[in-house]
Amino acid sequence: MTQGCGSGSGSEKLWGGRFASDVDSAMLDFSESTEADSYMIAEDIWGSQGHALMLHDCGIISREHLVEILRWLEIARERFEAGELTLKRDLEDVHMNVESYLREGAGPEAGGRLHTARSRNDQVITDFRMRLRRYLLQIRRAVIVLRGVLLELAASHSEDTMPGFTHTQHAQPITVGFWLAAHAAGLERDEQRLANAFVRTNQCPLGAAALAGTSFPTDRELTAELLGFDGVIFNALDAVQSRDFAIESLAAFSALMTNLSRMAEEIVVFSSPAFGMLEVDDAFATGSSIMPQKKNPCAGELARARTAAVHGRLMELLTLLKALPSGYNRDFQNDKPPVWQACEHVIATLRVMAPMWRSMTLKLERMAELAGAEFASATELANWLVRERNMPFRDCHELVGSLVGRLVAEGLTLDDHQRVAEIVTELGQPISAEQVEGIVDPVEVVRAQKSLGSTNPRQVLACVAQLRCNLEEDASDVEADQQRLDEAYDETMRRVREVLGEA
Amino acid sequence: MTQGCGSGSGSEKLWGGRFASDVDSAMLDFSESTEADSYMIAEDIWGSQGHALMLHDCGIISREHLVEILRWLEIARERFEAGELTLKRDLEDVHMNVESYLREGAGPEAGGRLHTARSRNDQVITDFRMRLRRYLLQIRRAVIVLRGVLLELAASHSEDTMPGFTHTQHAQPITVGFWLAAHAAGLERDEQRLANAFVRTNQCPLGAAALAGTSFPTDRELTAELLGFDGVIFNALDAVQSRDFAIESLAAFSALMTNLSRMAEEIVVFSSPAFGMLEVDDAFATGSSIMPQKKNPCAGELARARTAAVHGRLMELLTLLKALPSGYNRDFQNDKPPVWQACEHVIATLRVMAPMWRSMTLKLERMAELAGAEFASATELANWLVRERNMPFRDCHELVGSLVGRLVAEGLTLDDHQRVAEIVTELGQPISAEQVEGIVDPVEVVRAQKSLGSTNPRQVLACVAQLRCNLEEDASDVEADQQRLDEAYDETMRRVREVLGEA
Amino acid sequence: MTQGCGSGSGSEKLWGGRFASDVDSAMLDFSESTEADSYMIAEDIWGSQGHALMLHDCGIISREHLVEILRWLEIARERFEAGELTLKRDLEDVHMNVESYLREGAGPEAGGRLHTARSRNDQVITDFRMRLRRYLLQIRRAVIVLRGVLLELAASHSEDTMPGFTHTQHAQPITVGFWLAAHAAGLERDEQRLANAFVRTNQCPLGAAALAGTSFPTDRELTAELLGFDGVIFNALDAVQSRDFAIESLAAFSALMTNLSRMAEEIVVFSSPAFGMLEVDDAFATGSSIMPQKKNPCAGELARARTAAVHGRLMELLTLLKALPSGYNRDFQNDKPPVWQACEHVIATLRVMAPMWRSMTLKLERMAELAGAEFASATELANWLVRERNMPFRDCHELVGSLVGRLVAEGLTLDDHQRVAEIVTELGQPISAEQVEGIVDPVEVVRAQKSLGSTNPRQVLACVAQLRCNLEEDASDVEADQQRLDEAYDETMRRVREVLGEA
Amino acid sequence: MTQGCGSGSGSEKLWGGRFASDVDSAMLDFSESTEADSYMIAEDIWGSQGHALMLHDCGIISREHLVEILRWLEIARERFEAGELTLKRDLEDVHMNVESYLREGAGPEAGGRLHTARSRNDQVITDFRMRLRRYLLQIRRAVIVLRGVLLELAASHSEDTMPGFTHTQHAQPITVGFWLAAHAAGLERDEQRLANAFVRTNQCPLGAAALAGTSFPTDRELTAELLGFDGVIFNALDAVQSRDFAIESLAAFSALMTNLSRMAEEIVVFSSPAFGMLEVDDAFATGSSIMPQKKNPCAGELARARTAAVHGRLMELLTLLKALPSGYNRDFQNDKPPVWQACEHVIATLRVMAPMWRSMTLKLERMAELAGAEFASATELANWLVRERNMPFRDCHELVGSLVGRLVAEGLTLDDHQRVAEIVTELGQPISAEQVEGIVDPVEVVRAQKSLGSTNPRQVLACVAQLRCNLEEDASDVEADQQRLDEAYDETMRRVREVLGEA
Repeated sequence: MTQGCGSGSGSEKLWGGRFASDVDSAMLDFSESTEADSYMIAEDIWGSQGHALMLHDCGIISREHLVEILRWLEIARERFEAGELTLKRDLEDVHMNVESYLREGAGPEAGGRLHTARSRNDQVITDFRMRLRRYLLQIRRAVIVLRGVLLELAASHSEDTMPGFTHTQHAQPITVGFWLAAHAAGLERDEQRLANAFVRTNQCPLGAAALAGTSFPTDRELTAELLGFDGVIFNALDAVQSRDFAIESLAAFSALMTNLSRMAEEIVVFSSPAFGMLEVDDAFATGSSIMPQKKNPCAGELARARTAAVHGRLMELLTLLKALPSGYNRDFQNDKPPVWQACEHVIATLRVMAPMWRSMTLKLERMAELAGAEFASATELANWLVRERNMPFRDCHELVGSLVGRLVAEGLTLDDHQRVAEIVTELGQPISAEQVEGIVDPVEVVRAQKSLGSTNPRQVLACVAQLRCNLEEDASDVEADQQRLDEAYDETMRRVREVLGEA
Repeated sequence: MTQGCGSGSGSEKLWGGRFASDVDSAMLDFSESTEADSYMIAEDIWGSQGHALMLHDCGIISREHLVEILRWLEIARERFEAGELTLKRDLEDVHMNVESYLREGAGPEAGGRLHTARSRNDQVITDFRMRLRRYLLQIRRAVIVLRGVLLELAASHSEDTMPGFTHTQHAQPITVGFWLAAHAAGLERDEQRLANAFVRTNQCPLGAAALAGTSFPTDRELTAELLGFDGVIFNALDAVQSRDFAIESLAAFSALMTNLSRMAEEIVVFSSPAFGMLEVDDAFATGSSIMPQKKNPCAGELARARTAAVHGRLMELLTLLKALPSGYNRDFQNDKPPVWQACEHVIATLRVMAPMWRSMTLKLERMAELAGAEFASATELANWLVRERNMPFRDCHELVGSLVGRLVAEGLTLDDHQRVAEIVTELGQPISAEQVEGIVDPVEVVRAQKSLGSTNPRQVLACVAQLRCNLEEDASDVEADQQRLDEAYDETMRRVREVLGEA
Repeated sequence: MTQGCGSGSGSEKLWGGRFASDVDSAMLDFSESTEADSYMIAEDIWGSQGHALMLHDCGIISREHLVEILRWLEIARERFEAGELTLKRDLEDVHMNVESYLREGAGPEAGGRLHTARSRNDQVITDFRMRLRRYLLQIRRAVIVLRGVLLELAASHSEDTMPGFTHTQHAQPITVGFWLAAHAAGLERDEQRLANAFVRTNQCPLGAAALAGTSFPTDRELTAELLGFDGVIFNALDAVQSRDFAIESLAAFSALMTNLSRMAEEIVVFSSPAFGMLEVDDAFATGSSIMPQKKNPCAGELARARTAAVHGRLMELLTLLKALPSGYNRDFQNDKPPVWQACEHVIATLRVMAPMWRSMTLKLERMAELAGAEFASATELANWLVRERNMPFRDCHELVGSLVGRLVAEGLTLDDHQRVAEIVTELGQPISAEQVEGIVDPVEVVRAQKSLGSTNPRQVLACVAQLRCNLEEDASDVEADQQRLDEAYDETMRRVREVLGEA
Repeated sequence: MTQGCGSGSGSEKLWGGRFASDVDSAMLDFSESTEADSYMIAEDIWGSQGHALMLHDCGIISREHLVEILRWLEIARERFEAGELTLKRDLEDVHMNVESYLREGAGPEAGGRLHTARSRNDQVITDFRMRLRRYLLQIRRAVIVLRGVLLELAASHSEDTMPGFTHTQHAQPITVGFWLAAHAAGLERDEQRLANAFVRTNQCPLGAAALAGTSFPTDRELTAELLGFDGVIFNALDAVQSRDFAIESLAAFSALMTNLSRMAEEIVVFSSPAFGMLEVDDAFATGSSIMPQKKNPCAGELARARTAAVHGRLMELLTLLKALPSGYNRDFQNDKPPVWQACEHVIATLRVMAPMWRSMTLKLERMAELAGAEFASATELANWLVRERNMPFRDCHELVGSLVGRLVAEGLTLDDHQRVAEIVTELGQPISAEQVEGIVDPVEVVRAQKSLGSTNPRQVLACVAQLRCNLEEDASDVEADQQRLDEAYDETMRRVREVLGEA
């Protein structure tokens, strides 16, 4: 059974025998999907090759017809790879384009048999899944590159100090490596979600036909294998109607972009002269013809903007799918554009983020200067009192609060060690200026943090080591997934060539 | 001041004097906006013409320079209209493309003066507003066409009965005209929202320069007038940073698409054989090669899907703009794609909806058959008892509830007038079979509804008359808005030709 | 006709005569709406009073029944106002609660007549619109207060300088009043959108009954007048099924919150010590027990967060309404929670924003210091050359670019007037140190901006004057809207008392 | 370090020493989180117990202080379990409420030590994860129940026929069990996503302190174990700032609700009298007082509405988190309400869906009647020709298309076997009426579908068997997850009692 809103004169349409009038031209614009379908031409051809091989293996079509079908699919593939195959809008979609091509070449006797035991309903969702899994691999690989860049930077800056913020206010001194490793750690979970989405995407719906399966003695597992799928979606109705793999993928993208947008925000704000902690390389910035010192951190701003675009696509897909009844609905035609667009936004962002970080100037001097500003070491002084003087935490905090209040009133800071020592001593805890210095120096503060996963340089290196180990595992998982796809493709091609060679 | 992420070698970039390295190629892909900007080339040229005329009027540029500038802008416009001007991606955006064109033609001495007293920041938002106001007019006009089609149908079917539903269950008989007029009434409010959005869109930001205004003695009101704006956005910072007009337009589109999606849902469900109340014309449907009686109401399904796309764009824009600080942010570059895309989705849907309704077959016989089914007239029988027998409403409903319960048990319906009369009489309210017939016949039921705006044919005609009157007013408002734009354009062209003629 | 998912034993349910089994308890939790309905008890009572008065005026119920109905509605109202009326969950909604109350008091003979010629379908949407219009007035009033605060601050700081930013980077010096007036100008348009939403919300659906109008000789215009509506929604089906007024209101809230979030972002970032331009009053900030100088600008952060909540509610409502068929659908029950929640978020944010701004410390010295930093006056120097030396804009920018490049290399700034003069002279444009000083001093820069709506103090005062004028108009519009509602309520009460006094 | 916007007089606030003025009352309303925090009181107490035990184990607090702390936490827990502990709004949040309680009871000497080596920043995210994991288990269990109900029904109806739809139009006969198993299969993937979300949620952030770890010699792994976490989030900054687990959970809910909304849509539409294929049990429906045969499928409509609410919450969270900088931001306070609300919506929907399906009347006779209507068996006749007559698929479809066209013209259907046989024979393929009957009878059609996962009853049973097997695995996974949590809690309690017993 074939469905879709066709065009051309009635007699040309595959489904139009009884239709008196042509499709309205506004309707053709409204309903054709060649733009979105152009993303999956290679998949459509590979899918048809696998289907044809299976049909012959199962005795459903003759070798003669198989040869004709494969010959013309190969020609279509070569033309596509040479950039010479573009989809005709009046043939509506990729399936009809490829099949028309085939029927013109191989003639209706052979070409008309390719669509046996399948439907556009299972074909389109097969192509969709095949194309999306390819995007997922590409995105996983790009996340791995970015993680690698961040971890390399983190390892190089495990001892450099910078201010840690809460509420965009100075909170405590931290190390630069600690900060960068935190970003890398978030991306690791994004990678896991992408891998989970890949698993549920790479399941084969082909053979479900229109919705009910088919009365031909097909071998769905063979097709699934030839097309590189990890399994078959058993229930045929489920196979044609489910789009949850696409929701899951877009949601994984939204989570990833959220993490990227948070990095991007810091790039924008920390590059502002008032902070002056980062300087984006010229290649990722904007200048001004008149203020040549000015660098607009455009890549950061655009990464935030792309995040909005991805979130919007997720919301589009969820709204699209809500409350659709069982079976194929034409609404599904519009499920691919938001997915392709989201993929492109994610890839574009990752492609920029990695080299932008790699080429970033970390202004370490300014960072160190800000690390100790704004009494950011006060918390550590209080903790020292808790530990060394066995005071309750809340009392220590109160004492240090009084200290800071007096320093502010006197226009001093914690760097005025002598005065700090005097005041603390007055407040009942005798302490020397040397002790104070050993506590409040930002470098000492970060060293003092002992706990697992803290900002202490040793902990940072341990953290980076662990994240690198996971990174390598993830990288080999991606390559293994890629290899399975490649092998399946090679096997299909081998069988195609075998058939054509024998012919 | 000019801003943006450039490309090409440092020496070619307008802002790149000090930049050592070229823009990364991934970065160029990430940051160039020629696709979105290609929607507003005509506006960019018109805007520059107006700006140049104003600069001369204010004594900021000489007539000689004005002539050179206008000459080359005219050439650019002619090339654009001939389809020969495409935006170069490595010039990033429409403004740099047009200006480069001008500088090449008119030379730096004249071409370099066009950008006096403006910035890309005010220029882009001017173009954006000019392009969007054009889309808004197009959409308002398309809504008017659809309202007209619905009202024509409503007027023709003021007496035909159909079932009215609540909860997708039969509730009461209504008239077809009543149902269609309700849809038209919803669209009227959509039109009002679009008109409101037009008012706030058509305000001129040009002359705000980068963000602070300019020290040149400009005449912002003159530019606004030449460019067809209804007013000037006074505060320059507000002028460059505000995007609320775009939120408002997208929100108006989302409300409109919600109404269209509800119509679309009814087209899909009422076309299903079980209902069989509507038949979409061949031109807006899909067939099946094997079940030629089958018509898939694809246009309805796709209208639902486009609704999701528009909602997603609104969410994208809201997410994009959230928490951006004052002044121009590069995030703004991505504010246009969701708007253009949403406009295109809305227009495509309206373009199909109007002829689809116009060519729709209303299966009046089936509608009338269903109108009286499922005891839908029971409410009216109860109301009759309230009125004629002066019983409390709740008691009447209880009595009729008992009646229907007994009819169901006996396998009868309200059309068994004799038995209905017997049971009601037994329940204490003597009534004749003739009286029953006069009450429960769907045609009588709809006639009995007297209240203002009810489903009564006379009320339906009154409703249609009122809606038509509003429609005419709205249509002339649209034409008046269009005319103001056309006159401003003609005046700009007149002055351009005058300058060039004298030259 | 009454609809809804009831509870209690079959015999107690108003619609349950034939139902064998009770409603499942999970189902009761799922379907009752007393929480959302508790927002509109006052409206439900007023609505019933108006309806009863109309029924009597039209001869549909007797004076005797009217007296009984009004007497018990008055008692319900008094109990509600005394905080003694809470909605019973097993009566599902506010309508059944009020009606049950009435039936218990007035007895079924009178109480059972109140629901004549109406349905829960038109009643709930009437209550919804009445409650929302009240929220809209409250929000409009709160926006007016905030605009007033901003304009007062703007007027006081028309001459104080601060840096203007683009891309979160210093761009040009501006005045504080200019910046604050820009925010106020954005809110003015939000107010207009809210006023537009009010107009479309305050239309009366009552009398539409279930969906088709009624066969009783009602006077819908009388009810609309008594309930303070500005008009009647003519088509009955449109009246019960339309929710676009709610979309429009939520969209206006989202636009408003976007503006508030942008202010909030600046409060957060400009309060960060690195900027140090703002200091939130203690009453709107967070401290730290140990860093007493620390102030977390929580109100700003929470305003950003509330923006997300409002956007989410808009998306909820749009998703809810998409593709619902005509007539009442139970989905509508869930249209009110997102609206009430959004209103509460908006009000809470505005209530904090106004006093937070009023009590804000503007650190004028720091602002002035940053105003001239980062070569922000360079643009003005270029513009001066364009004007005074008649050079093309692009050439001037190039010259100043070279100047700044050399200053950066020499570690100087534009404040080194002597050196600046030397370099500019070397570059071919003789200039004195005094002239340089008169051009690049931030105070001079802002004064030099002449254009309409620029950052020049005089333009700022003109801008504030205009915005204040509009503010006063808006304020009197709000009060006029409020007064119409109050007068309608008073008239209803007068008629109620008249009836009860005569009885 | 403690943060948050406090209340009460300055002297009472834990962080307020230096603050001159009290918090504004609107600000308190704006900033307190007791409502959202009331969901996680039990978690906050358990968390504090685990933290205290660890502090003592690591020698950070004395046994004496431990005893005092645990004693008062136990009292708090008992009060909470007795429903006697409510959060005071002026103590802002759950942490300050529990700690105040403790300090009042145990005195500042002991109570003031509990907060050693932690911060509200790590405490709140710990509570959040602990509460969400509990919700996730509850939801996973509810999905399992619903899957079980659907599979039971599917197994019982593996042979009953019904129409399969595409585009809401009849497409092919399918079996009822096939349709229900498809829904169950979708839910299986939802369960997998929920299980994935559980894994990433159940990781321990406690011990990260404010953002940088702590200088106390803590044992983060011990706390993680006592609190039932599956691991520790290593990097402290990542631990306090990451919210991606919440995005992932909400996205899994949105995917799940999408599936539920699609079921719900079918319940609504198939219950409509025109279809008449389903009848919702009285317990999940609405009646009308006057049309007692009427049943409004409210639960289905409300499930659609809840889907919108969940999607809105996901969008809220994504919008909230976009572009927040590193470290704790007060915006995070508003991350919990959307999550709790979404969980409650999901649970409420599942709790109704399972018994609604269990009690649903499948109108098998009507389903069977519709199964063969609308030439739905035509596809199978064409397939038969492909197979038996070795014709190309497209030619067979054309032949059958002509057949159907003639039948429609003659007012006949495929059940007119004799006439069908005549026409097909005329069209060149001799066939008998008996053969036709054996092909087009819907029961035969579904039996003819042979392919893996087709609608054939044997395939349906195989599908159900597979899905049941997975269901059992999932159920034991849920129970294993639950058991780990229970054992951790028991171990904490055992150690608490041990300490208190010894005291």
